[in-house]
Amino acid sequence: MSLLVIGTVAFDAIETPFGKTDKIVGGAATYAGLAASYFYNDVKIVAVVGEDFPEEEIADFNRHHIDTEGLQIKQGEKSFFWSGKYHNDMNSRDTLVTELNVLADFDPIIPDSYQDCEYLMLGNLTPQVQQTVINRLKKRPKLIVMDTMNFWMDIAMDNLLQAIKMVDVLTINDAEARQLSGEYSLVKAANKILTMGPKYLIIKKGEHGALLFHEKHIFSAPALPLEEVFDPTGAGDTFAGGFIGYMAKAGEVNYENMKSAIIYGSALASFCVEKFGTEKIKGLAADEVKARVQQFVSLSHFDIA
Amino acid sequence: MSLLVIGTVAFDAIETPFGKTDKIVGGAATYAGLAASYFYNDVKIVAVVGEDFPEEEIADFNRHHIDTEGLQIKQGEKSFFWSGKYHNDMNSRDTLVTELNVLADFDPIIPDSYQDCEYLMLGNLTPQVQQTVINRLKKRPKLIVMDTMNFWMDIAMDNLLQAIKMVDVLTINDAEARQLSGEYSLVKAANKILTMGPKYLIIKKGEHGALLFHEKHIFSAPALPLEEVFDPTGAGDTFAGGFIGYMAKAGEVNYENMKSAIIYGSALASFCVEKFGTEKIKGLAADEVKARVQQFVSLSHFDIA
Repeated sequence: MSLLVIGTVAFDAIETPFGKTDKIVGGAATYAGLAASYFYNDVKIVAVVGEDFPEEEIADFNRHHIDTEGLQIKQGEKSFFWSGKYHNDMNSRDTLVTELNVLADFDPIIPDSYQDCEYLMLGNLTPQVQQTVINRLKKRPKLIVMDTMNFWMDIAMDNLLQAIKMVDVLTINDAEARQLSGEYSLVKAANKILTMGPKYLIIKKGEHGALLFHEKHIFSAPALPLEEVFDPTGAGDTFAGGFIGYMAKAGEVNYENMKSAIIYGSALASFCVEKFGTEKIKGLAADEVKARVQQFVSLSHFDIA
Repeated sequence: MSLLVIGTVAFDAIETPFGKTDKIVGGAATYAGLAASYFYNDVKIVAVVGEDFPEEEIADFNRHHIDTEGLQIKQGEKSFFWSGKYHNDMNSRDTLVTELNVLADFDPIIPDSYQDCEYLMLGNLTPQVQQTVINRLKKRPKLIVMDTMNFWMDIAMDNLLQAIKMVDVLTINDAEARQLSGEYSLVKAANKILTMGPKYLIIKKGEHGALLFHEKHIFSAPALPLEEVFDPTGAGDTFAGGFIGYMAKAGEVNYENMKSAIIYGSALASFCVEKFGTEKIKGLAADEVKARVQQFVSLSHFDIA
């Protein structure tokens, strides 16, 4: 009954108005796996790294009870590397370097011990690899969540549409929802995307929160207003990981649980941006998470007479 | 025990991607007064129009139980006129024409019968006129809400700061909060603005909802995701009018009531944008308003175990 996360495990070098880092560990599966581990204790990852990837980082995953049997280590090769610089508003960034390295021919091998997967998080990767993972699972998981980005809409739309057709929940941002649907209104965009396969659509709006669309229902989750966003890298992956981690804990796949899961995912993401990279979400105490979720309750609660 | 609204009563000519209008009735006091009238039956307005302003429009105010004794009609002069064109995203617009006309030397005369004012809505006007209204009331209202815009920050910051110092609630949009405070983070911006006088700050974020700041508390209200925004003109004024109208109905000035008031204001604003000008908010049934407010409840409700 495991939660499988597939995505990148990689190095990032990040520059923000607050400072810059050398190569630090990042990647969608890193953030999503760590986030999910706060809610569910049977998280497994499938990813690929080079021999340059530090053993102590793998030990960190294991300390979070994350199974790394599916983490391939390619001798003589280097890990995926991304470097970017955020602008002053933190909402836009320039990519400075992308070195695919081991990611160029990533074959997502699923260990036999992973075949009990009930919850599948497809982190942002080529849609082809995302499909391969689904096809290699002997039994369809009861919940498949997929994250993607505009890059695949630009260069691999057909493949992307095939992948989208196979999943239950799609998470994208507002600009991507508009690009994917060709509709400016997010309600119209969502209605169109919900005919493409997914039964649930989550539109991430960064500092403006997130919207969940399902049939004719809409849920609007706030984002926690923060004094400072230190580094937004990985916030979307952390959100997705917290989301599916909570869903696995809740057990039942339904709209009500998804609303709560979005709040838990948003809470984890609000921690993520407070420090560089994974620093903050590596060492959260259960009480901190609980208190942060309560902040979301205060933030959005109102009474109508 | 009345609710006094001061602001423009004017003509607008609006062009959106959905169509264009000839001169139709608009203005901050028009929208705010109409919106407030759905919650409170003792609304009075102070404004100025020219002899070109149609009598049937004044009769419309009166049908909404809005007292128009304070509406000055200047013979031989023309009403304020604004014309604008919205871009495709509806978030930005170009002003095509601004004719101040009667507004150029507007002296906000307060009729004696208005001196029982307990709730004062200062619609967007020169900060000097906003101050004059406060100074002309013999007894300070128990709640003063002020709306303003970037234009006054550009050309009359000192005057604006004096006016802001005199009010309880300030409503501005996110860009204006950043301009007024010199802070990019809305939390930092709000903390700074709350030292300028107001005890409450509402930051309007359009399609992303609104934030209420008070002491160390933050409330995040969603906006209703709409299939189509037909005409955004007057949405902010409608929001403010619904807000103060609900506050007057509730009677007690406190944070909890303000949260509900923001939901009521948002509900009214969500109607406003569905048609050109005041068309929609002139003819709402009580049931419609109630149902729309319930949509906001569904939109934002979640359970945390």
